[in-house]
Amino acid sequence: MTNPADSLQKQLNDTIRAASPALAAALSPLGLRAAFPQDIPFQAAQARQKAYNGTIGQITDGHGGAVPLPSMAAALGGLGEADRNRALLYSPVEGIAAVRELWRRWQRDRIDDTGDIGGHAGGAEALHSTLPLVTVGLTHGLSLVADLFAGAPDGRPRAVAVPQPFWGNYRQAFALRTGARIVSAPAYQDGRFNPTALQEALAGADLAPGEPALAVANFPSNPGGYSPTPEERELVVASLVAVAEERPLVVVADDAYAGLVYEEGIPTRSMFWDLQGRHPNLVPVKVDGATKELSFFGGRVGFLTFPFEPDSPVAKALESKVKCLVRAAIGSPVAASQVILMASLGYDGVGAEVERVRRLLAGRYRALRGALDGVDPEHLRPLPFNSGCFALVELGEAPRAAGLGADTVRRHLLDAEDAGLVSIGERFLRIAHCSVDEADLPELVRRLARGVADLVARRGAGSVRG
Amino acid sequence: MTNPADSLQKQLNDTIRAASPALAAALSPLGLRAAFPQDIPFQAAQARQKAYNGTIGQITDGHGGAVPLPSMAAALGGLGEADRNRALLYSPVEGIAAVRELWRRWQRDRIDDTGDIGGHAGGAEALHSTLPLVTVGLTHGLSLVADLFAGAPDGRPRAVAVPQPFWGNYRQAFALRTGARIVSAPAYQDGRFNPTALQEALAGADLAPGEPALAVANFPSNPGGYSPTPEERELVVASLVAVAEERPLVVVADDAYAGLVYEEGIPTRSMFWDLQGRHPNLVPVKVDGATKELSFFGGRVGFLTFPFEPDSPVAKALESKVKCLVRAAIGSPVAASQVILMASLGYDGVGAEVERVRRLLAGRYRALRGALDGVDPEHLRPLPFNSGCFALVELGEAPRAAGLGADTVRRHLLDAEDAGLVSIGERFLRIAHCSVDEADLPELVRRLARGVADLVARRGAGSVRG
Repeated sequence: MTNPADSLQKQLNDTIRAASPALAAALSPLGLRAAFPQDIPFQAAQARQKAYNGTIGQITDGHGGAVPLPSMAAALGGLGEADRNRALLYSPVEGIAAVRELWRRWQRDRIDDTGDIGGHAGGAEALHSTLPLVTVGLTHGLSLVADLFAGAPDGRPRAVAVPQPFWGNYRQAFALRTGARIVSAPAYQDGRFNPTALQEALAGADLAPGEPALAVANFPSNPGGYSPTPEERELVVASLVAVAEERPLVVVADDAYAGLVYEEGIPTRSMFWDLQGRHPNLVPVKVDGATKELSFFGGRVGFLTFPFEPDSPVAKALESKVKCLVRAAIGSPVAASQVILMASLGYDGVGAEVERVRRLLAGRYRALRGALDGVDPEHLRPLPFNSGCFALVELGEAPRAAGLGADTVRRHLLDAEDAGLVSIGERFLRIAHCSVDEADLPELVRRLARGVADLVARRGAGSVRG
Repeated sequence: MTNPADSLQKQLNDTIRAASPALAAALSPLGLRAAFPQDIPFQAAQARQKAYNGTIGQITDGHGGAVPLPSMAAALGGLGEADRNRALLYSPVEGIAAVRELWRRWQRDRIDDTGDIGGHAGGAEALHSTLPLVTVGLTHGLSLVADLFAGAPDGRPRAVAVPQPFWGNYRQAFALRTGARIVSAPAYQDGRFNPTALQEALAGADLAPGEPALAVANFPSNPGGYSPTPEERELVVASLVAVAEERPLVVVADDAYAGLVYEEGIPTRSMFWDLQGRHPNLVPVKVDGATKELSFFGGRVGFLTFPFEPDSPVAKALESKVKCLVRAAIGSPVAASQVILMASLGYDGVGAEVERVRRLLAGRYRALRGALDGVDPEHLRPLPFNSGCFALVELGEAPRAAGLGADTVRRHLLDAEDAGLVSIGERFLRIAHCSVDEADLPELVRRLARGVADLVARRGAGSVRG
């Protein structure tokens, strides 16, 4: 007798292969195994409209309504009864249908046409996107992509290309959990953005011919706070197409900071859209969410989207795999947060509300730019930034000659300057302007500059490492 | 130069080994690697009280307050401003401190003394428990335990013992993700609970001498709805101690349905307490949460607790590992849900509120008992149940002789009886009385009995399998 789980796996893998041989080739061993099982959530979904439904281990009033503790119902008093019910009861594993529809519209309404989406005659209408699957924040979307594509086949670690410096949690999400290896290349060269970093990283990664790889395209970037110009975007795209000439390449568009762009002429749309339809070996996936886009950090609502039509067989096959992995790791996504998010997403004025947050950050961005323009380049070299939540500064010649590392500077700022920044690697400090009052940014930069100057003076050039 | 991550790993593993050699021996390759990195959350925690804090990529008003969209703030209107802020901003990776403290007290206040906690002179005071780590629901706690202990070392699948029939998602959480293998033994024999099923499963699992193993002790059980009597509990404990004579054994107390017990004289406390201090090789871990205990299914707040004192070095070492895995997979737990839960946990009357839910379910339990007492045992054999959300019925001789499988019965009930139940394996149907009105349960059982009778009549004994 065939194991039904095995035959479901085979059917899903065949469906994916038919639509995109490259995507099928890129699946990890876990990605190949994953298939939403026909157990409780599957059976409960079939019983949803039945007169007598005893499928689901959820305490209800017997008619589908929640049985809230009164103290908890009071805390949810800002919601109507129907929404409160939805907040208290299980979400479907794929997410609440209305939230998925609203988020798909939100994503597509934000495809700007600054520059050229190139190769897409027909504009936004011609671009493909599945109904987004709901995740527990952005990181969960990344870890699902890692589960699907980064797991090492036959013990051979798969390469994941990330421009350096990078958000440290990529290492945990992609490498620690799955055994993949992070390969990196400088995101900045001679103080300028390097649009071919991903290609360079993979070129130096000692890959076998045709071996699949992953890459992370995150604009606006963390920690860089950078989004490429239209010309740089074209170079990013061309460099990834060049990689795809040689191997299946899954590109994760990490769109955590989508929309937070502060300079005219810089495209705001996700690379997910630009990378579609460029090469059969090039498959973008989109990871985004309400965390930063709708200022809902504590809600943990993220989304995972593939470049296919919502009801296509390949979309359904990928949905089955993702639902399997979501159920295995966290059961189901957060209903309460989805309902709270829906209050905003379903409101006509939400675009204006989000724009007000962007303007608040734009003011901080300008204040930080102005302050950093005045620092001594021998001590600190601000790297280009134009978007997102951060600016990145590199230690200059003087502190490096004095053997000062970024973490030494960070600890000195904590102790002597009552100021907290994040150190990244040996040379970089990240300033999160998103969490500092505009009026305080000049003083924060003064303290940073003073801290570095004091350390340099104390050490003298050429002294011992710290 | 030593890699600081490597030396942190070694230090954590040494600390765990010093406190519990068995627990250290049971760690999976991923469990051995995991260590909370000194990156952004670590550095942000150090900067928390600084005058100028530019560490964290979270949009705030510049003074630690949230910047909510007005439409979202309205949805959270049931909370005061301070709580709303906490709901909108990131939770610490380990969970909000006050929630962890409140949950620890909640857990310990529920150590009943029905029967004997055996071997624990000093009563509840002498029992150990860490500050619970917050997870995204119960399943996330299980998958974290799987990450820590179930991953196959050197490609050798680790054994996870589970009484059969079992909740299907154990397969996904423990086996699909980590490569472990589920081993099972009948939870019921001759229609009675089998207290030594876990020991029997491991005895038949072909383990090497001293090879570590895992076991799941879930009372009240899913799908069984069963909690052992005091005498049966002693047999469960003794059988696990016997396993521990031979190998390190991590026992997961899956306490999803804690407190939902409907018969006098049945202990309600977690096996986590009973299994402490019995044998150096026997290490219980506790997985529980607000999902069922506080009727907050959509919130996804679970907890993971180890049998050590809160500030002990081993507690801190395990916390570092769990935080690393939480950050890698989902970033941080849900702040919004923790704040909503706090409204109940911090309220003096919460015990009475929870007791009212228990009484509601006790009424359904009695209604279902009564209805099942009347079924024809040739068609359906109810297995013993006394707690939780479910009852399990086994197909009797007549349907089995007719070649009827449980899923055939389930589909017939959907189509012909407008009734939904869950099929488990070839022979079992699970009835979730927790989601059916007390008044409807007799009719649901009538439809089940009629459905089976109709199928048996239609097929005639001995006909083809379905």
